[in-house]
Amino acid sequence: MRIGILGSGRMGGTLGRLWARAGHEIAFAYARSPAKLAALARETGGFSGSVAEVTACSEVLLLAVHWSRVPEVLTQAGALTGKVVLNCCVPLDDTDSALVLGPTTSGAEELARLRPGARWVGCFNTTPSESLAPVFARKGQADPPQLLVYGEDAGALSLADALIRDIGFAPCPAGGLRSARFVEPFAMVTAELAYDQPGGPALIYRFEKLRP
Amino acid sequence: MRIGILGSGRMGGTLGRLWARAGHEIAFAYARSPAKLAALARETGGFSGSVAEVTACSEVLLLAVHWSRVPEVLTQAGALTGKVVLNCCVPLDDTDSALVLGPTTSGAEELARLRPGARWVGCFNTTPSESLAPVFARKGQADPPQLLVYGEDAGALSLADALIRDIGFAPCPAGGLRSARFVEPFAMVTAELAYDQPGGPALIYRFEKLRP
Repeated sequence: MRIGILGSGRMGGTLGRLWARAGHEIAFAYARSPAKLAALARETGGFSGSVAEVTACSEVLLLAVHWSRVPEVLTQAGALTGKVVLNCCVPLDDTDSALVLGPTTSGAEELARLRPGARWVGCFNTTPSESLAPVFARKGQADPPQLLVYGEDAGALSLADALIRDIGFAPCPAGGLRSARFVEPFAMVTAELAYDQPGGPALIYRFEKLRP
Repeated sequence: MRIGILGSGRMGGTLGRLWARAGHEIAFAYARSPAKLAALARETGGFSGSVAEVTACSEVLLLAVHWSRVPEVLTQAGALTGKVVLNCCVPLDDTDSALVLGPTTSGAEELARLRPGARWVGCFNTTPSESLAPVFARKGQADPPQLLVYGEDAGALSLADALIRDIGFAPCPAGGLRSARFVEPFAMVTAELAYDQPGGPALIYRFEKLRP
């Protein structure tokens, strides 16, 4: 599958690299430096381009930019009609310590309002980028870590599930896009646990249901 | 230890019963019916009384009422100066489907503002009441489920940790009371997974840190 990465930073760059190792073709767009995009393209055997180019040629997109960059990237990406977009953005303020949306809306719901023609799925926002490579390295082992995924479009969710499994996670369905108003704050909990509590940043989680 | 339960509903009633089985003396207050309070007291060998009575005679309190009842209960409880209060409330609206506080404040922060003399700890809000008995039944087994706990008062946190372990959970420190603005929405995620996803309501969770 050709996956377009809109926002080739730590999260987007890492996911692009791992999806390439899982056999996908990756198109990288939108990084601080064009050199970084070119390096990612070289490393993965993919290519790099403008947001508009990468959007046009990709079967699925990952939106992985800082919340402050969303308006610019959406403008460059266009209407996104019919596109499956995996959104891992959290609506962070400029200090990355507070949310600018909630509790009765969310980044995901705002994106769906701005681009109603896209097929939105929320995922990859509740795991630090540092956990991705260790999870990928353990892929295929029993009891994989889980990843919350939410949205309304069944086909898009199915595609997201496959890409989540490609990294080594088990998808954990968490309802529709409205769930983002609760999952996006949960991303702040995982960030607290990853970066402010002992043991390093490669945090994963698993939910389980007990029998009475 | 004498534990006062302010709000003897599903969560407060269940925790009171299990803490009694763990050897604590339980004082129950504030339920829809006085008969329920008396039955809980009989069942556990504890006692029941008014919010003021239970507050006065308890070494630690659990606040477990619907958010809409908080003003009334705080008025009856008084200043709470020096009291350790475990808060499992989530600031839910009357439909129990939306939060009325966030994203830059939280129920826990609002409670600390209303009763600054109390020694607040947040815990037991991210696990459905249905999981408590199954977790208690498995107490002592390897790899216990975790429970997020947060606050600033080291002594109160230490006491909370012991009471969390008494139920069968491993405490998972999640920072100060400010974390409530993210943990309280996470409670909505666990509710979604418990009640709206397959497998029954007895949901538990575990975080883990991977080595690279």
